[in-house]
Amino acid sequence: MKPLSRASAPAKIILFGEHFVVYDRPAVVMAIERRAYVTAKPRADNRIIVVKSREMGASGAFTPSGEYQPIEGGLEFEPKFKPIYIITKRILSLSGEETLGLEIEVDSSIPIAAGLGSSAAVAVASASAISSLLEMRLSRDEIFRLAFEAERFVHVNPSGVDPAVSTYGGILLYRRGEGIRRLDVEAEIPIIVGDTGVKRVTGEMVSRVSDLLMRYPTVVESIMDAGENIAKLGVEALKSGDMRTLGELMNMNHALLCALGVSNDMIERLISAARRAGALGAKLTGAGGGGCIIALPEKSNVQGITEAIRNAGGEVFVTAKAFEGVRIEE
Amino acid sequence: MKPLSRASAPAKIILFGEHFVVYDRPAVVMAIERRAYVTAKPRADNRIIVVKSREMGASGAFTPSGEYQPIEGGLEFEPKFKPIYIITKRILSLSGEETLGLEIEVDSSIPIAAGLGSSAAVAVASASAISSLLEMRLSRDEIFRLAFEAERFVHVNPSGVDPAVSTYGGILLYRRGEGIRRLDVEAEIPIIVGDTGVKRVTGEMVSRVSDLLMRYPTVVESIMDAGENIAKLGVEALKSGDMRTLGELMNMNHALLCALGVSNDMIERLISAARRAGALGAKLTGAGGGGCIIALPEKSNVQGITEAIRNAGGEVFVTAKAFEGVRIEE
Repeated sequence: MKPLSRASAPAKIILFGEHFVVYDRPAVVMAIERRAYVTAKPRADNRIIVVKSREMGASGAFTPSGEYQPIEGGLEFEPKFKPIYIITKRILSLSGEETLGLEIEVDSSIPIAAGLGSSAAVAVASASAISSLLEMRLSRDEIFRLAFEAERFVHVNPSGVDPAVSTYGGILLYRRGEGIRRLDVEAEIPIIVGDTGVKRVTGEMVSRVSDLLMRYPTVVESIMDAGENIAKLGVEALKSGDMRTLGELMNMNHALLCALGVSNDMIERLISAARRAGALGAKLTGAGGGGCIIALPEKSNVQGITEAIRNAGGEVFVTAKAFEGVRIEE
Repeated sequence: MKPLSRASAPAKIILFGEHFVVYDRPAVVMAIERRAYVTAKPRADNRIIVVKSREMGASGAFTPSGEYQPIEGGLEFEPKFKPIYIITKRILSLSGEETLGLEIEVDSSIPIAAGLGSSAAVAVASASAISSLLEMRLSRDEIFRLAFEAERFVHVNPSGVDPAVSTYGGILLYRRGEGIRRLDVEAEIPIIVGDTGVKRVTGEMVSRVSDLLMRYPTVVESIMDAGENIAKLGVEALKSGDMRTLGELMNMNHALLCALGVSNDMIERLISAARRAGALGAKLTGAGGGGCIIALPEKSNVQGITEAIRNAGGEVFVTAKAFEGVRIEE
């Protein structure tokens, strides 16, 4: 066993197809260079699993019976830490080290509850850090499966896209029933993320779309056809590195999401600011009703777009496609 | 011959289907209680046709040879007055009064070049006022045809919807190749019109859509399918007087127009203001890139929406469906 192991995994954005994906249409998801870092080390007090998060300012211990005892912060952090605990127990069991005590420290720069896949990135990095600590040589597929299993405890019917993109990096094409496929994209893709600061409300937005589909089936089906066609052309634009087309398709995708009623005033403000500052395209990413927008800049206007989004009231960071998924940090 | 005759015809808004109509999809067009008034009287100086417009602060005379001589304002007003001159000559010829001189005065409260069908309303009211002056009992169909013929001189390939709605009033369903059908709608429909003050640029916007269709045919076709389905459901909502559905469909139609890139910042500002103030729906009307937005209010929030649009920088007026088309004013 190593004295300490540290791993990281990237966040994700949805380039095309959020919401449509629920209705068996394709989605295109990209890993971005914003990472969750997880450090694992052994503890002397056997069987106690301590989990800490710097960003949340919280920590707690899971006892051998699986009970959560807060150290810093209250019981409300238990659901956040539970997937990490599940992964830890599973890996300890696989390695035959059931009685080992561990300390797992999360240090993530991914905004939480913003639709950027923060929890999946933490789960993937945890699986990697813990298995590496125990000198188990898990494959990426095994790490993905461990993280995905843990996600099932917190999300109802997760698609697995989030842990997949955090594990493998790059750009994934996903369609329910057809599974996840990694796209071969050479191009560097810069992305500016603007956070509305409003927590996204996935469930409410998903219901809103299903409601609209019930009331206007012919309209919503045609909109989803358009969304599917955008995703398909988006894949081509990504492969050929055609940023102008990529941006235009992002704009169209966003308008379709507006038609489904999942945008809001703050999202529109940030998007409009990004476009006015010269973004090739901008859209909400994720469920909407809050959360983040993404803008595709040109090299020359990264700073202008960043400032425009900030002036419009958004928290902003500049990032890019993460070629690499989960990795051990030395 | 009467000493004087005065007629009026209503402006129009497009409830559903602008742009899509160019690609053989249905459009729903409504006459509104904002009218162009035209007064016709004989002149002693035979064969001289004088045309005046109060709003434009312009007037001029067409000589027997058809030459335009400005009286007030310059030569730039000739194209504006030409359709009126064409209608006048045509009616004089039909009545056998070729040598009569006439004075035609236009007094219109319809914003010009804002997509509200101002020129068609003026043409229709002119045909009515002049034929009534000469005591010819023209049918509505004949008045429509006279105005439509004159429109052909100023617009390339006009659909005929504008003169039709100004002639017949109410709500029309139009589809290229299938012609124009009047819908039987009992409900009163209040409408708030917000003018961006930016002249719309129909040609540029139509090219933008045709360009997008060339580059993304599958996407744009699906968007137009959605637009067609919205128009069809819109007709049902109008017939049943379901204002809530009507508003929702207007919002969706607007988002599709955004997807086609024909909205702009000012349009979005006015629409967002109207929606925040409680409009059941809001959309651009006409070609976009400027021009007007329309908002569907509830009785209780007409004033709030009006103020919100004005505060957002729009000129605004409150109107409603015009049941009546062209009419003689006593």
